Parts: sequence; C-alpha cells; structure tokens
Amino acid sequence: VRIASVGEFGLIEIIRRSAPGGRRGTTGRRSPAGGVLLGIGDDAAILRPTPGFDLLLTTDLLLEGVHFNRNYASWVDVGYKSVTVNVSDIAAMGGIPRAYIVSVALPSDFLVEGVRSLYSGMRQAAREAAVVLAGGNTAFSPGRVFINLTLVGEVERGRAVTRSGARVGDLLFVTGTLGDAAAGLDLLKREKKSFPFLVRRHLRPTARWREGRALSRIASAMIDLSDGLSSDLRHLCNESGVGAVVGASLLPISRPLTAFCRLGGKRPIDYALCGGEDYELLFTVPKRRIGDLEKLVRHGAIKATPIGRIVSRRRGCWLVDSEGAVPLWPGGYDHFRSGRS
Amino acid sequence: VRIASVGEFGLIEIIRRSAPGGRRGTTGRRSPAGGVLLGIGDDAAILRPTPGFDLLLTTDLLLEGVHFNRNYASWVDVGYKSVTVNVSDIAAMGGIPRAYIVSVALPSDFLVEGVRSLYSGMRQAAREAAVVLAGGNTAFSPGRVFINLTLVGEVERGRAVTRSGARVGDLLFVTGTLGDAAAGLDLLKREKKSFPFLVRRHLRPTARWREGRALSRIASAMIDLSDGLSSDLRHLCNESGVGAVVGASLLPISRPLTAFCRLGGKRPIDYALCGGEDYELLFTVPKRRIGDLEKLVRHGAIKATPIGRIVSRRRGCWLVDSEGAVPLWPGGYDHFRSGRS
Repeated sequence: VRIASVGEFGLIEIIRRSAPGGRRGTTGRRSPAGGVLLGIGDDAAILRPTPGFDLLLTTDLLLEGVHFNRNYASWVDVGYKSVTVNVSDIAAMGGIPRAYIVSVALPSDFLVEGVRSLYSGMRQAAREAAVVLAGGNTAFSPGRVFINLTLVGEVERGRAVTRSGARVGDLLFVTGTLGDAAAGLDLLKREKKSFPFLVRRHLRPTARWREGRALSRIASAMIDLSDGLSSDLRHLCNESGVGAVVGASLLPISRPLTAFCRLGGKRPIDYALCGGEDYELLFTVPKRRIGDLEKLVRHGAIKATPIGRIVSRRRGCWLVDSEGAVPLWPGGYDHFRSGRS
Repeated sequence: VRIASVGEFGLIEIIRRSAPGGRRGTTGRRSPAGGVLLGIGDDAAILRPTPGFDLLLTTDLLLEGVHFNRNYASWVDVGYKSVTVNVSDIAAMGGIPRAYIVSVALPSDFLVEGVRSLYSGMRQAAREAAVVLAGGNTAFSPGRVFINLTLVGEVERGRAVTRSGARVGDLLFVTGTLGDAAAGLDLLKREKKSFPFLVRRHLRPTARWREGRALSRIASAMIDLSDGLSSDLRHLCNESGVGAVVGASLLPISRPLTAFCRLGGKRPIDYALCGGEDYELLFTVPKRRIGDLEKLVRHGAIKATPIGRIVSRRRGCWLVDSEGAVPLWPGGYDHFRSGRS
C-alpha cells in the first residue's frame, strides 16, 4: 500500500501507533517516560524537565543518496541510525538522552510498510537509549526521502561537557575502535558480504551514551566522532584553543579492520584517521582525574584507549609515528566538497 | 559565490555570524537570551529551563516546491515563515517561544547570498517572537532545498493549553481574519501585484504568540489554523471528543478578502473554511471565563471573534447559515492527497 492512498492523517496514525504509549504519550503517569507528558497529536509536545538539570538539544538530518543509500541500507537501518547519531551528540555532552521528534518527507509512492520499518528502526535505537518519540511532522516529498530528528537530553546544571574545555597537559582518549564504519561502507559499496562486524559498524552504529554519562564528571572536553578522528580532533582543538599530539601506534584498531586492510592492501591508520561515522567518543582528561578514569575502565563501565595529549595551540596538531611527526590535517568528510555515503 | 566553494564549515561560519551573540551563544550572561547557555558550535545546544515551567517542543519542515515556491517567495520570506509556523505552534499551547534549531539541506550551487537571506528572514521572525537561534545542522542536497526547524518553548507547569480541553457549552473563537493567506497564494500563483495585504498574509504570516500567551489562562482548548478552519476545528473536536456549531455569518472576513472575492466571483466563506496557513488561533472558552476574555479584548491585548459553540460529539460539526445547517467537513489541505502551495 502506498502512503498516497492513506493520506497524511492516515500516515500520522500509523506513526502514532508505532509510538509506545500511543497518541497521548504517557500523560497521567507519575514518572512519564522521558519526561514526555504529551506526545504526538497536538500543536507541540509537552515535556517536564528534571529540576536542577540543563536541557540539551541536537538535530541531525539524513538525506537519501547523501547520508544513506537504499542499495545497501534497509529502512530499519536508516531509522536506527537517525536516532543513534542524535543520541551520540547528547552522549558527547555527558547527557542523558530523553525524547525525540521526527520530521519526514516521503514520496507519495513510498510504501506504508517502509514507514513501519523506518519507525521500527527508530524505536529499536530509542529503546536501547531509553528515549521516547514525542512528536513530529510529515510531508509529501516530490523527490527523495528526508528524515530530520531532534533529540532532547538533560544534564546536571552546569555539568555539560563541551568541546572547549581541553587544557594543555590533558590526556586524549577515545572509546571503542576507529575506522570500522568507513571500512564497512567500502564493503557495502562493493557488495561484499564479508566482515559483518565492519558492515554493522556502518549500518547500526552504537551511541556511547552510557560511556558519555560515566565520563561527564571526568572529561574536560568531549566530541563524538562523526567526521573522522583528524577532523573531529581539529574541532575539539579549535574550540578549546589548544593543539594535540597523537601517537599513530596508539590508535585502537579492531581485528576485523586489520584483517580487511591486509586483504585489500590498505592501511588501517587511514581509516582510523579519516573514516567517518564511528560515533565513538573522543575526550580529554586532566591528569588529576586519570585515576577516576582508570577506575571506570577497571569496573568495565567504559572501554577507552589513550591516544595522545593536549599541547599548546602554537604547537598545532601532530601525528607521531616511528619515523617522526607529521602535521595532522582534517581528512574527514567535508560533506559539501565530497558528499557522503 | 556558491556554497560548494566555501564548504560545509565555511557555511556553518556564515550561519554562526548571522546568529546574534556569535558562536558561543550568550554564555556567561546572567539571563541568557532564550535560556540558551551554549549555541551553535558544539555537539548540542545547552538551554537552561525556567524553574516551574514545562517544556514545549515542536517541529515543522518546509520543502521547496511543496511548502514554498521560488517563483514568488524570496529566501527572506521562506526563512521568515519557517520560524513563524513553529512559533505559531507554541502560541497554540499558550507558551513562550524560546529558542530554535535549524536543519538545512541545500544544493551545492546554492548561493552564499541566498543563505544570508534565508537566515536573515529567520532572524527577523525570531526577533519579533524574541527567540534565539541555538544550533542546527547543514547538509548538501542533490535536489531541492529542505528546511526543518525545531522550536522550544516554555509554559507554566501543567498550564499548557492542548487541543483536548474543549467541553460542551464552551464558546468558540478565532483571532484575526480567516482565508486571507489562501487568497494571497491564489494571487501569487496568478502573478497579480494587487491586494498586498492578502499576499503578505501568505508570505509573512503573523504568529499570534502574544495572543496565545494572554489566552493561556482563559482558553480550554486551542489550535493554530494551518490547514484551514474546517480541518483544524475537526482536529480540535476529535481530540476533545466534542462537536461544534459554527455560524457562517460570524466568520471574520477582512475587507481585502471581500473585495478580492467580489472581483473574482468567489465566496469569502470558501476561503475562510478551507484556506490554509492563516496561522490564527482557534480556541474555546468556558462560559465562566468569557468575562476575562472580554477584558483582554477591551484592553486591546487580543482581537477575537466568537464564531460558534461546542456541542456534544454525537451532534457532530455543523455550519449554520440563513438557509439552515450543513455538515462541516474537513476541506483543508491533506498534503499527501493534494500537495500544498
């Protein structure tokens, strides 16, 4: 069934039914899920903020053919990722993700089944991050599919971790492993069925919100890796007014990425530095808080690898390997120059 | 200059510069504008909620060729309207609009000047509603221009006016005049330069947020008129579980609309019932609060016209004129069936 035949209001009903709690959200409950008092179906959603918390607000748009490609991403994948990339932004502030609203523009020959898949992917990622669908907007698109998500999060008053708090002497860490998602995308483009771990890292990235939360009292600055380490490190350094030295041999590379590169004659470090969409967290920790971080790692709350340290802005950003130091340039994606996916 | 040549980060810089307060928002001020502690340039914006207030969240997307047409809307118009339609949603909840975030997808041959115009239109509408740009997202679009705005507002805890509070016996009111915007759109389609009032009502609609605010303690239910009176009244009635009787002769029609209809052999009532995008407020008032409403009207705080009353759901929705009563059907736009603009 095409969405043209159910109309806009029919479509909204399908979306409503896909939201747990139904149309009225969770009104009346003493602790409404995600703080949502009123969800889909009014002029605006109503959320009850947690006293003593600041509000975090982020938005990301996914455009067919730019941010995802229907040749290899299912609608469930697309829905999943649209939530995850926003949860990742809240994670990078040390916040708790709460609720999201979605705008979609769909062609009129889009199938109702596709809508269900899209929202089922969102719901899956939302459940993993304990966030609630609070509302949205639908429209007819004469062309491609547009999906825009806005996610609201919360963080203890004044405790948000920004990009601008890194200081000279802080150590630089990253969660998880680097470059997997970009390798996964290369595999998908070549229609390879091998290396499911890498493919999954591209199609179903993990938002590190538990890690971000655990780091909120330890990290001096934090950013999520969407454009690639070299680009995102540059953002963090620019905003903090510092430089950085990164050790090439320290970068965490997964076994599948190593194996994939060996087969294809590629270098894992290129993926690790320039590959986008890993959605790992890059963060800095003042030396006096390293003990706290070690405790978190020991207790299994987070997996983090030290990859370098913060130096003065004057010294710039460098990659150090066995042969010496080379300037580290943003090599990640600049969407307007190169496109994406 | 085309945006392709400045790149995504260059584009973000242009947008940043268009935001009052610059990149860091208004950090450090004792009463930050719109509650925005940190604006464009981090993983998420940080807002400080007003203690004792609930949060309102709304989103609206504008798609080139669907919601606006470049043949007659300038980029300033489009930017202006993208903010206004969201402010109108917050108005309809009786809330105070606070801050907004914007996602745009632009073709790479889009001009930098167009970006400045678009954001200048947003800024103009934002200034009028005292809201602040808090962040956003940009992407390359292989096709049309896509704009999505999310607006955050606030309302005293538990005091949001929903669509579901209308009760049998309440009186039905509308702010301003009806049908002007749809007539303005007809004029634009026919490239007429006459009736500037009607054209302006389409291109630069006014969000009734001061009125919505004043009504927040008086109205039992409220909705903003985006799809047309007959459609939006139906939404209000459905959500409240009631019916309504509307007097045809009571509908507020502007002099320009009357003149325009006389010239073109059209009926103002068709525009008033079915014309979309007036962004006036439709609201219900319990009889015991009518005195409070009259006071507001007398003091010039709002212009409101009584157009009917709420009856039981069983009785349905009716339009009454000198010849009798006819059932009132949703005649407003259903975007997926008919498109818009």
